Amino acid sequence: MIRLAIIGYGYWGPNVVRNFSRISGVSISWVVDINPTTLVEVPKIYPTIQTTSDIQDVIHDKTIDGVVIVTPPRTHFTLASTFLNAGFNVLVEKPMTQTTKEARTLVALAEARKKILMVDHTFIYTPAVTSIKQILDSGELGDVYYIDSVRTNLGLIQKDSNVIYDLAVHDFSIIDYLFGMIPKTISATGYTHKEIRQETVAHISAVYDNNLFVHCNISWLSPIKIRRMMFIGTKKMLVYDDIEQSEKIKIYDKGVSFIKDPKQALQMRIGYRSGNMIAPNIPIEEGLFGMAEEYVRALETKKKPLTDGNAGLRVVRCLELSTKSLRTGGKSVRI
Amino acid sequence: MIRLAIIGYGYWGPNVVRNFSRISGVSISWVVDINPTTLVEVPKIYPTIQTTSDIQDVIHDKTIDGVVIVTPPRTHFTLASTFLNAGFNVLVEKPMTQTTKEARTLVALAEARKKILMVDHTFIYTPAVTSIKQILDSGELGDVYYIDSVRTNLGLIQKDSNVIYDLAVHDFSIIDYLFGMIPKTISATGYTHKEIRQETVAHISAVYDNNLFVHCNISWLSPIKIRRMMFIGTKKMLVYDDIEQSEKIKIYDKGVSFIKDPKQALQMRIGYRSGNMIAPNIPIEEGLFGMAEEYVRALETKKKPLTDGNAGLRVVRCLELSTKSLRTGGKSVRI
Amino acid sequence: MIRLAIIGYGYWGPNVVRNFSRISGVSISWVVDINPTTLVEVPKIYPTIQTTSDIQDVIHDKTIDGVVIVTPPRTHFTLASTFLNAGFNVLVEKPMTQTTKEARTLVALAEARKKILMVDHTFIYTPAVTSIKQILDSGELGDVYYIDSVRTNLGLIQKDSNVIYDLAVHDFSIIDYLFGMIPKTISATGYTHKEIRQETVAHISAVYDNNLFVHCNISWLSPIKIRRMMFIGTKKMLVYDDIEQSEKIKIYDKGVSFIKDPKQALQMRIGYRSGNMIAPNIPIEEGLFGMAEEYVRALETKKKPLTDGNAGLRVVRCLELSTKSLRTGGKSVRI
Amino acid sequence: MIRLAIIGYGYWGPNVVRNFSRISGVSISWVVDINPTTLVEVPKIYPTIQTTSDIQDVIHDKTIDGVVIVTPPRTHFTLASTFLNAGFNVLVEKPMTQTTKEARTLVALAEARKKILMVDHTFIYTPAVTSIKQILDSGELGDVYYIDSVRTNLGLIQKDSNVIYDLAVHDFSIIDYLFGMIPKTISATGYTHKEIRQETVAHISAVYDNNLFVHCNISWLSPIKIRRMMFIGTKKMLVYDDIEQSEKIKIYDKGVSFIKDPKQALQMRIGYRSGNMIAPNIPIEEGLFGMAEEYVRALETKKKPLTDGNAGLRVVRCLELSTKSLRTGGKSVRI
Repeated sequence: MIRLAIIGYGYWGPNVVRNFSRISGVSISWVVDINPTTLVEVPKIYPTIQTTSDIQDVIHDKTIDGVVIVTPPRTHFTLASTFLNAGFNVLVEKPMTQTTKEARTLVALAEARKKILMVDHTFIYTPAVTSIKQILDSGELGDVYYIDSVRTNLGLIQKDSNVIYDLAVHDFSIIDYLFGMIPKTISATGYTHKEIRQETVAHISAVYDNNLFVHCNISWLSPIKIRRMMFIGTKKMLVYDDIEQSEKIKIYDKGVSFIKDPKQALQMRIGYRSGNMIAPNIPIEEGLFGMAEEYVRALETKKKPLTDGNAGLRVVRCLELSTKSLRTGGKSVRI
Repeated sequence: MIRLAIIGYGYWGPNVVRNFSRISGVSISWVVDINPTTLVEVPKIYPTIQTTSDIQDVIHDKTIDGVVIVTPPRTHFTLASTFLNAGFNVLVEKPMTQTTKEARTLVALAEARKKILMVDHTFIYTPAVTSIKQILDSGELGDVYYIDSVRTNLGLIQKDSNVIYDLAVHDFSIIDYLFGMIPKTISATGYTHKEIRQETVAHISAVYDNNLFVHCNISWLSPIKIRRMMFIGTKKMLVYDDIEQSEKIKIYDKGVSFIKDPKQALQMRIGYRSGNMIAPNIPIEEGLFGMAEEYVRALETKKKPLTDGNAGLRVVRCLELSTKSLRTGGKSVRI
Repeated sequence: MIRLAIIGYGYWGPNVVRNFSRISGVSISWVVDINPTTLVEVPKIYPTIQTTSDIQDVIHDKTIDGVVIVTPPRTHFTLASTFLNAGFNVLVEKPMTQTTKEARTLVALAEARKKILMVDHTFIYTPAVTSIKQILDSGELGDVYYIDSVRTNLGLIQKDSNVIYDLAVHDFSIIDYLFGMIPKTISATGYTHKEIRQETVAHISAVYDNNLFVHCNISWLSPIKIRRMMFIGTKKMLVYDDIEQSEKIKIYDKGVSFIKDPKQALQMRIGYRSGNMIAPNIPIEEGLFGMAEEYVRALETKKKPLTDGNAGLRVVRCLELSTKSLRTGGKSVRI
Repeated sequence: MIRLAIIGYGYWGPNVVRNFSRISGVSISWVVDINPTTLVEVPKIYPTIQTTSDIQDVIHDKTIDGVVIVTPPRTHFTLASTFLNAGFNVLVEKPMTQTTKEARTLVALAEARKKILMVDHTFIYTPAVTSIKQILDSGELGDVYYIDSVRTNLGLIQKDSNVIYDLAVHDFSIIDYLFGMIPKTISATGYTHKEIRQETVAHISAVYDNNLFVHCNISWLSPIKIRRMMFIGTKKMLVYDDIEQSEKIKIYDKGVSFIKDPKQALQMRIGYRSGNMIAPNIPIEEGLFGMAEEYVRALETKKKPLTDGNAGLRVVRCLELSTKSLRTGGKSVRI
């Protein structure tokens, strides 16, 4: 039996508890939250889970195999380092930390203590992203040279986090997983709400090896919710629309050709698809569930999880540099 | 009777001829094209229009009131200056020229010769953009502080023009018309096809007065055709989707508020619209027809058209600086 | 404290348990299911709820205020009559019974025993249908004379129930609630899968008083999921699309006019909307939660619920007659 | 050179003239319309076409190879029989006539006179319907046993024609072409506007051989324009959405299976697609152009066109019987 403690029961905590509860062989011993009012909700649904506002109760519980930190981003580093220092395996919600320096410290700490450090890059565990990985690896799209990602909705403007840490974390972690590369340069522009000194819109451009260009449009200021990534390859193009219920991935048998003949050129303009489109069947499952399973597997096998501390570090670095570029007028920064 | 000569009968020429033909009191005397094969099509539909491959035939025709230049962008300047010098009123397709310098020369030439110089910024004459102008002027949206524009499709990659001159011309001309402002700074990133040394994707950020931030995502590399501008105001948000047949404009009674209470915050995340949405009725008419009418009106009244040479100049300057920024790694350029 | 027993924990049971759990002052004492494997899941989430495969355990528990029957339709009558006879208040999932005769018996039994009999017509309790009720009652649409309803998806073909009992129950219950009328005549055509002798597609036409004509297209054989009702009124038209996330209701300021002038007629064909469209803001809440609250209120106040046994009876009668018409070649049947 | 006379230049006439003009080897000699105001428009665009309000001018023109009748439906029979009797080949707009009797008379007349009688069932000539024909013939869908067609929009309510003759003509002609079968029985319900004694909504059920069931929902009373046919086969399902610009046809690798296992049943309900979806590439061309080509081919070769008088007769019979069934309370009528 794997015994867990969940630290934080705010917006996301209940989803985390629900998904770990679905895994057989897992028992949640504690839910911790500084807000006692929130904790009152726990026993109504899960009467066997103990609740507390004091993390010392968890630290003193020697039966715990791992903790899951689901608190606001600004508290991730302190909590994660406390638990690692206390000898616990740790799973942290995304983004892992607020700074690259903090991320490096956590990675070093986990290695020194020989503990598992994992970050919840949820999308990596969705059937859609897993399918895209297989399609890319099969070479069906040819070489991908442009990715256009849009994540917009009318989001909660947060006082202690900007839109980059909230949304671009998904793009950087997905590309990290799909391509195994980090950007060479990053630049970003955007809009900053002066009232809270936080970026609420960001347009991030990132250049990777192999001539891959990526742009992320992320925004809390859109009346329409969009979650769409386009992968433009030399052979085919893939659109991943996470809002779609049943056809999240569409592969267009369409590439670019260089046409000189004016007659053909005309035809290209009028009919802009020359091949078929295929929407492969994608199983329906929560990414959060696969992520929970991966953590449990790591705890059981003592092996590094797919999204380990280093993945968290690579992504936080991108977030930090994107914010830095935006705050210096869009200057391109090298990694 | 207003007599016109149409210079160029390629992809767009037939649309121009068709729309001017619809205006009573207008007669098209000539269609000129260097390609004789193309000209063969003209008399099949319009037997009374004379055709020629030699612009001298037009220049010697003293009955012509104005010419309309519908040729590839690289020929605009030479043709327009030739006709202005020859004493003709001139309407040029967008973009007016390929460089700011050329645009300035044309404007000066038109003034010196006291001739009309007009540019076809088609969208300005669509019922949708006219409606948006009225809505903005009414103050219904409050102050607009962010515009997010997307123009993507699988476009014909052109050898002598990049995606900025092809598509961003619409964004800059629409904003020029709606707000009467030019950007203070522009920066751009994108993707360049080395085979043809042309930009095929561009992400342009422009900062205007009154804290207005604009981003344009323009691309010839998208399997999906998108034509959408979002105007985010302090009071309401407006989405203009030109692909929609019957509801091109949607006004969302939704603004941003700064919420501290965690309970309310939760609710904000779940339901991201708190007010009604209204799609005003928009009449259906081609922008090209309204543009044609404006040129005829200018020829008849000798008054400056809405999109005169100066509008063309302002827009070309933005296109040139966007391209320049993109080619220098995204550096912000001042106007 | 209201104490409940839930009978049935299959596909829908967990949703019912979850929603009643959210109501303060409510305690679920029992979950009953004939399948012991299913029951194993209950204590994992709700350790305080007792489970059993024997309804006698519930019947002998004198602390129970009401039962909720969430079993397959063919068992509704037997279970409901057993519990009513044993002196319990009863809530039954839709459809209340399989025959009109059974429905009448239950209604009579509830009256004789002075017990509450309620049916779960879930949609009646959704914010969308409640909003439509207000809009209709306000007279904004004028007189509604045509309703076009479509409920299609690739549904599970069931051995003991046809598509009419599965899906048309929603249409008849919604119209029953919105208009307070029953049809005068019903006719139906459709497709029957011979392998299981069950209707898998049905097209039901129903004529109501006030010249109201209703058609329901219900199908388990559609690759696309559609849940859409259109209400055509003399003044305006309303579309209720339950698949939409944020704009479930759209009101079109559009009516029919009788045009003789051929010029105007032409214009009518080209632009088919002459007024604005408004999508009112609808709060997000599960209908099942409102339904659960209504049952608890009825148990507490001893007053008839909105969807009482008589509503269940009226709807079952429509389902029975629709099936009868379909099986006799579409003959119109009077009610 | 094939010489044509176009009879009628109202709403649809200009489209017919434009498409015949595109065919080389075709010359339009006359455009006839009783309305002189309308005729004024013709020479503006086509200065070589003669116009008249008197059909005798055409009848006396011995150089004419065929006439095209594009007048209101109530005039089709008189005009077509006049021209056939005068020895002309005749193409009639859909629907060919208003009654089966008239259609039979025209067919007999054409045979007696050895003239071509063709009806413009436009959709038969669209790339989409041609593609569907190929897909059906290939057996990819298995046996098609259910077709669900919807054609709704806010249509012009016509005084001399009901919605069945206006819209269901498309469904019956498409199915006639795709399957080569006529219905065995037809029944219809609907809504009739008393002010004009015309049906404005109809729901037509038709039973064909091979256990094929067809339903058509046609309406002039919808704020939303829908043009969608679903073909449900034993192997796959096809959706033809004519409103879509680039993906008009989608083939779903999905059939119905009879599941008993309750666990699997549950899964079926949650994920309702188990296979891929493919949208084949469809060339873009007007059906009207292919139809015009077919008429010219028939005139040149003297061979029967694809949609000859008999096709027109079969479809008119379905329209007549649908109207009859609707007017007798939905009674099923045998063909």
